[in-house]
Amino acid sequence: MFYRKIDNDLKIGLSLPQYAEEMFALTDRNRRHLRAWLPWLDSIQKPEDTKSFIQLQLKRFADGEAMHLSIFFKNDLAGVLAYNKLDHLNGIGHLGYWLGEEYVGKGIMTKSVREVIDLGFTNWPLQKIEIHCAVDNLKSRAIPEKLGFQNEGTIRRTAKVYESYQDHSVYGLLREEYLDNHNLP
Amino acid sequence: MFYRKIDNDLKIGLSLPQYAEEMFALTDRNRRHLRAWLPWLDSIQKPEDTKSFIQLQLKRFADGEAMHLSIFFKNDLAGVLAYNKLDHLNGIGHLGYWLGEEYVGKGIMTKSVREVIDLGFTNWPLQKIEIHCAVDNLKSRAIPEKLGFQNEGTIRRTAKVYESYQDHSVYGLLREEYLDNHNLP
Amino acid sequence: MFYRKIDNDLKIGLSLPQYAEEMFALTDRNRRHLRAWLPWLDSIQKPEDTKSFIQLQLKRFADGEAMHLSIFFKNDLAGVLAYNKLDHLNGIGHLGYWLGEEYVGKGIMTKSVREVIDLGFTNWPLQKIEIHCAVDNLKSRAIPEKLGFQNEGTIRRTAKVYESYQDHSVYGLLREEYLDNHNLP
Amino acid sequence: MFYRKIDNDLKIGLSLPQYAEEMFALTDRNRRHLRAWLPWLDSIQKPEDTKSFIQLQLKRFADGEAMHLSIFFKNDLAGVLAYNKLDHLNGIGHLGYWLGEEYVGKGIMTKSVREVIDLGFTNWPLQKIEIHCAVDNLKSRAIPEKLGFQNEGTIRRTAKVYESYQDHSVYGLLREEYLDNHNLP
Amino acid sequence: MFYRKIDNDLKIGLSLPQYAEEMFALTDRNRRHLRAWLPWLDSIQKPEDTKSFIQLQLKRFADGEAMHLSIFFKNDLAGVLAYNKLDHLNGIGHLGYWLGEEYVGKGIMTKSVREVIDLGFTNWPLQKIEIHCAVDNLKSRAIPEKLGFQNEGTIRRTAKVYESYQDHSVYGLLREEYLDNHNLP
Amino acid sequence: MFYRKIDNDLKIGLSLPQYAEEMFALTDRNRRHLRAWLPWLDSIQKPEDTKSFIQLQLKRFADGEAMHLSIFFKNDLAGVLAYNKLDHLNGIGHLGYWLGEEYVGKGIMTKSVREVIDLGFTNWPLQKIEIHCAVDNLKSRAIPEKLGFQNEGTIRRTAKVYESYQDHSVYGLLREEYLDNHNLP
Repeated sequence: MFYRKIDNDLKIGLSLPQYAEEMFALTDRNRRHLRAWLPWLDSIQKPEDTKSFIQLQLKRFADGEAMHLSIFFKNDLAGVLAYNKLDHLNGIGHLGYWLGEEYVGKGIMTKSVREVIDLGFTNWPLQKIEIHCAVDNLKSRAIPEKLGFQNEGTIRRTAKVYESYQDHSVYGLLREEYLDNHNLP
Repeated sequence: MFYRKIDNDLKIGLSLPQYAEEMFALTDRNRRHLRAWLPWLDSIQKPEDTKSFIQLQLKRFADGEAMHLSIFFKNDLAGVLAYNKLDHLNGIGHLGYWLGEEYVGKGIMTKSVREVIDLGFTNWPLQKIEIHCAVDNLKSRAIPEKLGFQNEGTIRRTAKVYESYQDHSVYGLLREEYLDNHNLP
Repeated sequence: MFYRKIDNDLKIGLSLPQYAEEMFALTDRNRRHLRAWLPWLDSIQKPEDTKSFIQLQLKRFADGEAMHLSIFFKNDLAGVLAYNKLDHLNGIGHLGYWLGEEYVGKGIMTKSVREVIDLGFTNWPLQKIEIHCAVDNLKSRAIPEKLGFQNEGTIRRTAKVYESYQDHSVYGLLREEYLDNHNLP
Repeated sequence: MFYRKIDNDLKIGLSLPQYAEEMFALTDRNRRHLRAWLPWLDSIQKPEDTKSFIQLQLKRFADGEAMHLSIFFKNDLAGVLAYNKLDHLNGIGHLGYWLGEEYVGKGIMTKSVREVIDLGFTNWPLQKIEIHCAVDNLKSRAIPEKLGFQNEGTIRRTAKVYESYQDHSVYGLLREEYLDNHNLP
Repeated sequence: MFYRKIDNDLKIGLSLPQYAEEMFALTDRNRRHLRAWLPWLDSIQKPEDTKSFIQLQLKRFADGEAMHLSIFFKNDLAGVLAYNKLDHLNGIGHLGYWLGEEYVGKGIMTKSVREVIDLGFTNWPLQKIEIHCAVDNLKSRAIPEKLGFQNEGTIRRTAKVYESYQDHSVYGLLREEYLDNHNLP
Repeated sequence: MFYRKIDNDLKIGLSLPQYAEEMFALTDRNRRHLRAWLPWLDSIQKPEDTKSFIQLQLKRFADGEAMHLSIFFKNDLAGVLAYNKLDHLNGIGHLGYWLGEEYVGKGIMTKSVREVIDLGFTNWPLQKIEIHCAVDNLKSRAIPEKLGFQNEGTIRRTAKVYESYQDHSVYGLLREEYLDNHNLP
């Protein structure tokens, strides 16, 4: 309903309850694709589950605790991108994202993350943005690497995804690095 | 941050905590202008009061109870427009609105209300939209009259505005009237 | 248990949890009679539902938000009469009422409403009392008409009653009209 | 507003927020008289305190937890009488009461307590009613003694009243004793 | 996990969620033994019920409202002992306790209660400790009698235990009696 | 009140409200010493603040979310040691600790942490324990290094301590490493 245009094909907007049907459908047909990295899929069984999640995130946004966005490619919901946590005590925004399989490889997420980094450093007094990716999720790790984040360590077995534990690479971008890097590809 | 374009100069978007400073400033410099019709001005004394109000409305939107929008004219916040109550039990949306004095007379509100009537009948299963205006507020009453609403009665002394009581004209637009009228000026 | 005598046959009292069985029985045997005008009948399926409703109304009375009364005719619970909302911001009391079919036509409700108008203007600083009746509910409309209320308008499709929408006549009695009219029939 | 008549001069009713002013005034002019036995006087400093207390008790009555009554003698509020706790788990009602000094010695409390014992055994499935009195409060102890209660023990230092501790006589009346005694003086 | 040693075989500690399995097992195999005096057995049907109870008591301890302890004999959970209520308004601690049948007759409870009386008078400004025992529960009554409590009365039918009502002996120990008696057997 | 003995001079126990005075005094006289690494000192201004903190942690322990322990050296409260977060979703316990300056250099914390690692792996199904230390806090880092933790990375500017940001070394010990290392110094 309300958007921020990135280019002719691409726009983002706050995730709204009105998108629940479409977001659920995207999730549902990408279960196999997403299952390697996202631990919460089994809790989303019907559109109402997605709607409850969106309502919660919208309230957290109202309180300045998070910001959950939907990505639209040629007017279709293609994925999501979120500050899952805005840690104002320490001035850190924690970014996460996923795309439907059919939208991978089009540069959608790199452009979207870059826009949302701008939004983050502009709208809140953040001093750092972090992205945590599973070590083996090379496509996900490519995003912070392209955007000038620094790899700060590999935290072992930090996330349980179904029956296995994953090691995570921690990427960080400081505010001054962001200001220096402002003209990233 | 996220918008819906109406024309080159005019866009609307969900009211966000980030707009609190600008919305408070608009309210504050229009106190005299708004005082004739709006009873809540004395409860808004600082930007934080506006922010709390916006946070509440955003949470009510998340729950499907209301939708509070900001109107931007040439990128400046010019006024607000809201479904103050979405009465799903009876299928009725209650619209209210105000503009800063400097933005009156440019057709801003008529265009915005028309857009928001579309949003209302599209996003929720409403059967009617109501607008209540003070009998003496001729500029406000002109909007529903231009947009095909029917004047259904004059409810006496229904709103206390500071030390006086105001009679209100109740305007209503039924879904089928909306569908017939779709090509209003 | 605790009453206010109106005449030898008629008394009213705050609705108490102790009346739940009798009030449910009255509701239950009048379902057909009441169904034309009251939208909530399907939510009352057992005495416990009536009890929960009474408990809620008693708490709202404690907070000054409403006053729900039971009407006793020859010691039997004959109907109810309530300030469903006491809008202290605007000084308005909203009255509603219903009788079991066997008690209609005895003048019970006119006498009871007159008493409760007295109670309303005496106990709270109200400036107006409103009664909203379905346009087609002529027996209900006869009460405010007999008691000097003014018909202020017909609000279209304002209440969903099962599968249809009803237009409502809005009746209002201002405090000064009440003081002038004090010796109504 | 709503009463239960005991005799021509005496009636009781649920304590209502509307009585707060008069109940506070009674409390306030009897502080010295009541101070010997009631520990809560210092928490009641203005009518609003009494009103909050009444609101709480009315909500507890709605939930079946207590019943707080006002006693009216020749239309003046003379004292209070309450089931301070209705212990439904064990079927026990705990009664307490006080009168303004000017109303003592007229038989008001004995008649009122007898009525309220009836109400208690009639309205709830109680198997026992208890009254706890300070050992030295002979006027208070006279009531259960006149009404057939049994003295079951003297619990030492069970209540702190300002800077001293009081021993309490525990009086009990079983349901079958009540049924036998039904024609008490 | 954390203990207070009483003698080589006996120690007590705050009841912790980690003990839920063992406490439930003790309860479960002593149902017949405990049923004569404890009214709550039917609400404990699985270890999770015991765990919820322990969690609640630990939170009440955090707030200074109660203290629930587990008794360990030769490292096995043998029973429980609790200040079920710490009434700080009146300075009274209410003690209760039970042992598994296999642990009765070894002096466990007398030693434990004596220790917990010390803890009570030391940790909070109590002026009195009370123990209420069913009149017929001679083993339970033996404890306060051995420890210098005074029998203050027999309150009739004060506890419903399944389908019957029990009379309770009320035992009390004042702080100065405790200080005098400090070298009890 | 309830302890776990580590050696003749050293014991640990759940932090209890009863320790608030002593824990506040320890905190208060070590403000300068602790200020380099602990961000929360300014929020602790009186014993009541420490008590509220302990009450909160005890409730979180009751819910299995954390475990806050006090360390006693020769019966004096010497420091604290806590699972600040028990992340059961991912099976990770997050350990933190501090000592009063006068207790540093006696091996107190190494022994205590080793005991608490045992408690953690024994009481909950954890697969990993993590300790995060400021890079410059060499004394703090020495503990996980002595106890076989692996340094998994240096997360930049992850904690705001008064006006500066600190980089943190993340140390991790997996359950199987713990089982292998069981005979650490």
